Amino acid sequence: MSTEKGGYASDSVGLVEPQTIQFDEPLELACGRTLPSYQLVVETYGKLNADKSNALLVCHALSGDHHAAGFHAGDERPGWWDQHIGPGKPMDTDKYFVVSLNNIGGCAGSTGPTTLNSETGKPWGPDFPIVTVGDWVRTQVRLADRLGIGRWAAIVGGSLGAMQALQWSIDFPDRVASALIIAAAPKLSAQNIAFNEIARRAIMSDPQFAQGRYAEQSAVPRHGLMLARMLGHITYISDDMMRERFGRELREGKVNFGFDVEFQIESYLRHQGETFVDRFDANTYLLMTKALDYFDPADQHNGELRQALSGVAARFLVISFTSDWRFSPQRSREIVAALHQNRKSASYAEIESPDGHDAFLLPNQQYETCLRSFLQQQQTAGAAL
Amino acid sequence: MSTEKGGYASDSVGLVEPQTIQFDEPLELACGRTLPSYQLVVETYGKLNADKSNALLVCHALSGDHHAAGFHAGDERPGWWDQHIGPGKPMDTDKYFVVSLNNIGGCAGSTGPTTLNSETGKPWGPDFPIVTVGDWVRTQVRLADRLGIGRWAAIVGGSLGAMQALQWSIDFPDRVASALIIAAAPKLSAQNIAFNEIARRAIMSDPQFAQGRYAEQSAVPRHGLMLARMLGHITYISDDMMRERFGRELREGKVNFGFDVEFQIESYLRHQGETFVDRFDANTYLLMTKALDYFDPADQHNGELRQALSGVAARFLVISFTSDWRFSPQRSREIVAALHQNRKSASYAEIESPDGHDAFLLPNQQYETCLRSFLQQQQTAGAAL
Repeated sequence: MSTEKGGYASDSVGLVEPQTIQFDEPLELACGRTLPSYQLVVETYGKLNADKSNALLVCHALSGDHHAAGFHAGDERPGWWDQHIGPGKPMDTDKYFVVSLNNIGGCAGSTGPTTLNSETGKPWGPDFPIVTVGDWVRTQVRLADRLGIGRWAAIVGGSLGAMQALQWSIDFPDRVASALIIAAAPKLSAQNIAFNEIARRAIMSDPQFAQGRYAEQSAVPRHGLMLARMLGHITYISDDMMRERFGRELREGKVNFGFDVEFQIESYLRHQGETFVDRFDANTYLLMTKALDYFDPADQHNGELRQALSGVAARFLVISFTSDWRFSPQRSREIVAALHQNRKSASYAEIESPDGHDAFLLPNQQYETCLRSFLQQQQTAGAAL
Repeated sequence: MSTEKGGYASDSVGLVEPQTIQFDEPLELACGRTLPSYQLVVETYGKLNADKSNALLVCHALSGDHHAAGFHAGDERPGWWDQHIGPGKPMDTDKYFVVSLNNIGGCAGSTGPTTLNSETGKPWGPDFPIVTVGDWVRTQVRLADRLGIGRWAAIVGGSLGAMQALQWSIDFPDRVASALIIAAAPKLSAQNIAFNEIARRAIMSDPQFAQGRYAEQSAVPRHGLMLARMLGHITYISDDMMRERFGRELREGKVNFGFDVEFQIESYLRHQGETFVDRFDANTYLLMTKALDYFDPADQHNGELRQALSGVAARFLVISFTSDWRFSPQRSREIVAALHQNRKSASYAEIESPDGHDAFLLPNQQYETCLRSFLQQQQTAGAAL
């Protein structure tokens, strides 16, 4: 399907370079603290059209970042949503101007625990404030303003990214033409929070964590962060998928009556944990899980999601995956039901997939078709406006 | 229903005292190592009849022990299965002679990591061999021999305890009249193993673990064992039950934008973890999870559970709980199907319960009725033989 183009496939956005954008206006956060200034690291793919009506915002999930598509120089693997972003792909960069950013509190260059706090000259570390989905949306509004984008043609996100798209549609209804809410929930369940809490305890009880000041001591809470990721990973994949891929396969064909890795699933999880520690920051992990736990737009409306969504103006596409047990289809249906009760435009697709929550990041024909047709319609509708 | 009797309710077995039984014959273990001798701590309730036909063996689960019923002097809370064991209760001590033991590798007095290794004069600690369900069954066979019990009227267990009852019925078919298999699985799933592996990593990566020699250093791997228990606990209770009991309730009514305990579920889990650390041993936790992971009676029969169960002679009662997602009803049905394919006697009850895996330890009228009627029939059948 794709032929080579300057070393990259013809449906790839090719070589991309992130840019850093400085925001000097102070930002008041939900926690009551104020960021005097902040930077966002951003990638864009495609071209903004003359009337700036073709902009699409991609919001990242817990461990994601701005690098959603294409290749950084020297990289062998493309960005995390490359399958969906590019010329002729569902988020078609021949038509859309796609904007992807690293959120504040993140660890891929935007202001967060790993960047310098200008007031102290040291990394923010644990002093970086707890941020919320609403805070992120407000940084993204300023980003839109900076880019001259009055209204996003679409805001797209999976998981925690979808929560940002939902929050945008509530807080800034006039600035979102369509919202794609993938593998999300209107709020976390007690079980979701419980898993997050154990992940945080694992990180914070690692002696290398040093109250979050590990960077100052050139330490890394490896074990804690590894455990957190391994645990998270169990909730990202489905029991069926684990059974199919690993079953009870033994690495050496027999049990060895020791505590080293024996079953393939152990080896796989360990690998997930180890590679994660090399690329992710523990303080950021804590912040991201808190943003998840706190997300609950209905909370300010007596717990009524319907009321929270009464003022949205976007056209919605809500997508869930059958084997997702972290945010099950039922949770997506709650969002769709609340939208329909408000007589809002909402399509819903429950995609057959064995891949659990991770399905939103993985190839799936039905999923791709669904995104593609919705975004094509949106493009046509937008052009007609 | 129950009136007081010597300070105890009339349906209580009252004050009980464990006894320690020494076994001097060496025990060859599945791992290839040999225990030169071992002790079992045992409690019994009720009286063994003249022909020794009324003996009922209770096998404990991961964190259980020999203290299944009645009260130890000074205790306010009875044994862990007190609701089911006593005069007039399902395991009726007016009729049955109930035997309950702490398994080897345990930490409640039987030979295990916390007892002295006579060869070194130090606690076994991490040098205690990894034991299997099959090993436990063989220690229990010797216990039966010591007590003069040729054939158990019933062997009863929940979860890992049920796996022992199942293994008994396979390895010693002539010595088990009936087997009660509650909240079990014929083997762990990859997901089950994954959770166990993370629990073990949490314990072993705690610096206080000291390669398992923490006792020699008067240390305790508190954080690791706490994490392990908190994680285990999520899998013991159901998502629905969490939602009902905790929802997203906040301890202080509002979020505090910090990393202290905020949601009630966090507080509950933390409490579960903390109380567990005070009563349980980390090395034992490792051993118990390995015994779970290794359990797979079908493995020696080309993975065919049907074949593994072809020689059983017991009457079976298999019980599962609707909201158990650790060992779901589906897993129990696999056992029942394999028994029925062999034309064996097996009743199956799927008990409506919101309590998840923990339901096997909690009051439930349907569950109690089910146990009671099966054991009454068994008693009648036994008397008729």
